[in-house]
Amino acid sequence: MTTSALTPLEPTARTRVGRGRNRAVGDRAAMHAFLAEGLVAHLGVTVGDHPIVLPTAYAIDLDGPDADGSLYLHGSVAARWLQQAGGATVCVTVTEVDGLVAARSAFHHSMNYRSVVVIGATRVVEDAMERQHALDLIIDHMLPGRSATLRPSTRKELAATAVLAVPLREASMKARAGGPVDEPADAAAGVWGGELPVRRAFGSPVPAEDNLAGLTVPPDVTARVRPAV
Amino acid sequence: MTTSALTPLEPTARTRVGRGRNRAVGDRAAMHAFLAEGLVAHLGVTVGDHPIVLPTAYAIDLDGPDADGSLYLHGSVAARWLQQAGGATVCVTVTEVDGLVAARSAFHHSMNYRSVVVIGATRVVEDAMERQHALDLIIDHMLPGRSATLRPSTRKELAATAVLAVPLREASMKARAGGPVDEPADAAAGVWGGELPVRRAFGSPVPAEDNLAGLTVPPDVTARVRPAV
Repeated sequence: MTTSALTPLEPTARTRVGRGRNRAVGDRAAMHAFLAEGLVAHLGVTVGDHPIVLPTAYAIDLDGPDADGSLYLHGSVAARWLQQAGGATVCVTVTEVDGLVAARSAFHHSMNYRSVVVIGATRVVEDAMERQHALDLIIDHMLPGRSATLRPSTRKELAATAVLAVPLREASMKARAGGPVDEPADAAAGVWGGELPVRRAFGSPVPAEDNLAGLTVPPDVTARVRPAV
Repeated sequence: MTTSALTPLEPTARTRVGRGRNRAVGDRAAMHAFLAEGLVAHLGVTVGDHPIVLPTAYAIDLDGPDADGSLYLHGSVAARWLQQAGGATVCVTVTEVDGLVAARSAFHHSMNYRSVVVIGATRVVEDAMERQHALDLIIDHMLPGRSATLRPSTRKELAATAVLAVPLREASMKARAGGPVDEPADAAAGVWGGELPVRRAFGSPVPAEDNLAGLTVPPDVTARVRPAV
């Protein structure tokens, strides 16, 4: 999929950014890059007369059967949220906080962040090849390259796992970066303003207690460990 | 509020943890401590026939007018989500990812995390004192102690800001910690398993370009900066 073939972001009213349009990101390639970087999604599903929002692992596939790419979620076939979400219109939101913005008034305090909101009708993935591929992508989203190092899933494991696809078509992205935007009189009053950057940091890998003796930490894990700040 | 007076968690069917009951945390004090530590909430609101999930700052007040404490959200009075959320039943979820769990099969891969789900009917906060207090709490949640260093909000700023309270009564908390739980045969097959810890790290404060000369970084900001790993 080439960048020139990408559908513009915000194609519908329900994913149009309302307040803070200056923070809207209109670039699908930027959205894809961000979704590849996020770790956890928040899935909103309507249950009866109210929404429920649950954190969940995810992955995206820009070459999947959905025209603008697919966002995959998985879970136990016994999970209530999956039973509610199958075929329903859901909202999947991925957010990373990038900084705390200390302004000179309460009003102008803010956070720096990137966030993608995807709204769409879920498709329960039934095709065995697509299911397996989606599950591999979810593993590799966490630890790139790991799925190829694992034994194949058993029939029993696959039967216990439900996979949902949400089309990446209806989506929007917002981002804020930089320091505070204060009233000039407030900046002149002498309160320190600025940004406190926030980053995700990975610690040293902790081996499982039942690891065989002599195993070294594999590249899929070590590649994640980088200096924090 | 003393710990002994806390209402037990999970008082209703809609906040009862379904799958993974072994990960349920039944302790309100643990929930309060976690909510004090989280940075961002994901708010789920029903809009028409589907949910929308948006990231937002928040704060909690265990001594507020709601019996089991209040979770406060704020936003522009012009924001669509606030217009939808006023008086409606919403879901507020706060999640922190604590680690990636590398198992020896795809099936047993997991994340370590803490997550709180609150469901409740929102109350639009009209009382001027409660509104001001809630807004101070949201600032101090980001940067503890900062609100006391700022000028009072103007009437215009307060009029432009909506504050919502969600009672902390209907809530549940889940947490996973530790290494992978694999089938013994998989652990014996020689793939490295373990946990990759994930932490939030704060970088060095970046002063605003319009800071007066000679200002030092205040304690509300420096207190946030700790070694990452």
